Amino acid sequence: MDLHILDHRLRVTSISKNGLVNYTHPLIKLIFLRNRTRCKFFSLTETPENYTVVLDEEGFKELQPSEHLQVEGSIWLPLNVVSNGNVSSSSQAVGVTKIAKSVIAPLAEQHVSVFMLSTYQTDFILVREKDLAVVVSTLKEEFNIFREVAGESVPEHGQDAHNGLHKNGKEAIQCTVHPVLIPQNQFCVMSLDPETLPSIATTLIDVLFYSNSPKEDVTPAAAPVQELDRIKFPADLLFTSSSGELWRMVRIGGQPLGFDECGIVAQISRPLADSDISAYYISTFSFDHALVSRGSPHLPLLRGGDALVVGVPSS
Amino acid sequence: MDLHILDHRLRVTSISKNGLVNYTHPLIKLIFLRNRTRCKFFSLTETPENYTVVLDEEGFKELQPSEHLQVEGSIWLPLNVVSNGNVSSSSQAVGVTKIAKSVIAPLAEQHVSVFMLSTYQTDFILVREKDLAVVVSTLKEEFNIFREVAGESVPEHGQDAHNGLHKNGKEAIQCTVHPVLIPQNQFCVMSLDPETLPSIATTLIDVLFYSNSPKEDVTPAAAPVQELDRIKFPADLLFTSSSGELWRMVRIGGQPLGFDECGIVAQISRPLADSDISAYYISTFSFDHALVSRGSPHLPLLRGGDALVVGVPSS
Repeated sequence: MDLHILDHRLRVTSISKNGLVNYTHPLIKLIFLRNRTRCKFFSLTETPENYTVVLDEEGFKELQPSEHLQVEGSIWLPLNVVSNGNVSSSSQAVGVTKIAKSVIAPLAEQHVSVFMLSTYQTDFILVREKDLAVVVSTLKEEFNIFREVAGESVPEHGQDAHNGLHKNGKEAIQCTVHPVLIPQNQFCVMSLDPETLPSIATTLIDVLFYSNSPKEDVTPAAAPVQELDRIKFPADLLFTSSSGELWRMVRIGGQPLGFDECGIVAQISRPLADSDISAYYISTFSFDHALVSRGSPHLPLLRGGDALVVGVPSS
Repeated sequence: MDLHILDHRLRVTSISKNGLVNYTHPLIKLIFLRNRTRCKFFSLTETPENYTVVLDEEGFKELQPSEHLQVEGSIWLPLNVVSNGNVSSSSQAVGVTKIAKSVIAPLAEQHVSVFMLSTYQTDFILVREKDLAVVVSTLKEEFNIFREVAGESVPEHGQDAHNGLHKNGKEAIQCTVHPVLIPQNQFCVMSLDPETLPSIATTLIDVLFYSNSPKEDVTPAAAPVQELDRIKFPADLLFTSSSGELWRMVRIGGQPLGFDECGIVAQISRPLADSDISAYYISTFSFDHALVSRGSPHLPLLRGGDALVVGVPSS
């Protein structure tokens, strides 16, 4: 398989719920007005805690510093695994499950912190720029590694980072116990052609920027609260996962996880990979989130209030 | 003809160019997300000076006070003339021309300040709530006056305001000389069905909130500046004035006009009405603007740098 180091230098930021009003102007530009910005990588995730915004340096320039904006100090590089057909895989699973053993586990063993962004099409594995030499050394046995530079894919052989490697992963790893939370709501994973984005712009703007505003034209007596929160997307415009499948979410972390702990994704993705169960994985500024198919036989094993022991098994 | 006093209590405000970023969130809500607000009357006009926002009290609540927001102190009520077929009119003209002699001139003679908002369909004549008794007394000879209250049209006979009336308009009126400016750009007057608003939302958002941002994906060498500023609206969605007619704009005022001077609209609209020439008239926080059909024989008479004597002729 091929591993591509994409040509984006990313920042991981967080906008507070109260501060969203101050960032509506740049965010709408970054999401909907592609010809107004040079930003080429943008991700926005809303959670009950805050908005996590991951974006390249061109996009980051649009966000004015304020008390409402938190910025992780590092530059992050997105990695992307491309199945090129040279390696046979019997797995039908999608998402982080496909890369759990080949990428996530080896990086965790080398104490490389990763920030995951699963999407409908692919998974982006963000690593710190300063860890790149270790990443390349760790993964070059398993992958053909290419660095994308100005639209070209250049083979990357890496510098000698073996001195920094923990060659057999046998050393003691600090284990942290994180609680998990499985909320009742269900998720739909969707994708959209950029050309059809304008046609659902007002719906998306409504969801992203006004979900906390009351709806004024519906009398509460006539419509229960859960109806108010149900968003109607035009079904013909969106690519949804197979047969409109619904996903349950597992939130990892009770206190904000920070960015330095390693092995959290590995701990979650390993048992899923063992059973070939699809899962999307989305890191945010405060917590990690795994989306698991609602029908997954593993889901009943994870219940709200359960705790996970996070850390890399030293097998 | 009927004159309706609409059931809106309006505020006239101005947002500075620099301050627009701070008001993007409430303005997008007011323009595009009708089910998120109780606001029923909203008007936004961009000029080189600022953004003039006229909106009812429900909408006004959405605008947080700041150094970038100026608010005129009065409550304004919108009047609307409805042709009910009882009075024959030979005029084919549209806009302020139709109401110049029946509404605008009599109000000017009574020293009532008006704030005009022409639209594609109709003209709104805004008068201060405190002037309403004088307005009704002045216009009740010519019009059947109705006050709209909670969706019902209630006949309005007015209180006795004759003591305050200048019965024959013969008294001396202070004349002010205002320069006019006729910029080279041309205007298209368009209307849109509310149901099709979402489909051009991103285009409108681009025009309204980002027209000062550079376009990043067009190299200046490939496209001259005037191309960058040309907006492509989907023609099939918009109702444009007859045969895509273009309009020239006459801006009235060198220094901001303020809100207390009377007779400016009357001075502009009288000669247009005499010649049955269509004109839209749009007041803003700083200046007044008349839109005159490009082919109007009167337009050459008004040239940039000319001065108008404003005041009501005492004929």
